[in-house]
Amino acid sequence: MKTIRLVPIGIIHTPYKTPEGMAIQSKFDRHGTGQVKLFSKYRKGLKDIKGFSHLILIYHFHREKREMVIVRPFLEDKNRGVFSTRSPLRPNHLGFSVVQIKKIHKDGFDFWGVDMLNQTPLLDIKPYITHIDSRKNVKNGWFQKHLRGGKIPRRARIMKNHLA
Amino acid sequence: MKTIRLVPIGIIHTPYKTPEGMAIQSKFDRHGTGQVKLFSKYRKGLKDIKGFSHLILIYHFHREKREMVIVRPFLEDKNRGVFSTRSPLRPNHLGFSVVQIKKIHKDGFDFWGVDMLNQTPLLDIKPYITHIDSRKNVKNGWFQKHLRGGKIPRRARIMKNHLA
Repeated sequence: MKTIRLVPIGIIHTPYKTPEGMAIQSKFDRHGTGQVKLFSKYRKGLKDIKGFSHLILIYHFHREKREMVIVRPFLEDKNRGVFSTRSPLRPNHLGFSVVQIKKIHKDGFDFWGVDMLNQTPLLDIKPYITHIDSRKNVKNGWFQKHLRGGKIPRRARIMKNHLA
Repeated sequence: MKTIRLVPIGIIHTPYKTPEGMAIQSKFDRHGTGQVKLFSKYRKGLKDIKGFSHLILIYHFHREKREMVIVRPFLEDKNRGVFSTRSPLRPNHLGFSVVQIKKIHKDGFDFWGVDMLNQTPLLDIKPYITHIDSRKNVKNGWFQKHLRGGKIPRRARIMKNHLA
């Protein structure tokens, strides 16, 4: 099967030089701020994002080299099929986060909801649109028990023992 | 900036050999069925998807060669910054759809919500999780006026004149 070549459109800057202490999902991060800085040829593509509150970021887990089909997720000590998890050990190492716009600049924007490492290569930005991206009557599989009551789960940040 | 090489994990089969008549978003497709078929080395990664109703597919707009920063979206006749749209003309040609599982097979699954062409190379599958992926208090920018009342918009399918 043919290889697909992607080129980063910019860089995500975050407070996390290592995964330790970082939220496992942007939704679980209530305080951190990240910055997206686009390379100059892509900046005009930010036109019209002003009216949106949330954006989808697709990026590369650039520090992860392992690719596994069975993984142990951060939330529990069981082996799961990687496509039932959001683990960075996934094939192709594509990361996906919904973030909230804090401030727009000429070359990018600041956002809330940091769950990626500093210097992460950004591959795409899409507007988050309620009617398209928000679904009702969803079954959440093995995640459901960790997310009861809409609370942030106990293991919502990456701890040292997850990184072994 | 360094190129990132991705390898398809499988193929998406759909009724659409050409874009004409295809929904512009999976949410706007109420009847079609697509099939995901994974290459053999990735099939074990499907373990545990059974408990989920919806999956996120990330794929490659393999037929689109143009990359533009200003585009004309399907829904209206105005020029928009590409990152405020879901246009396939985007840099890196990454597609993103939330689909509903219809039936799981050993080598993949059937799904509802078809908005991709037949033979689309699949790059990743992630579980759609309400608490992580569904957001409230969202501002939908220029899309908002097209999506009032939760109805499917008038230009929800790709017409011949969009393809010029």
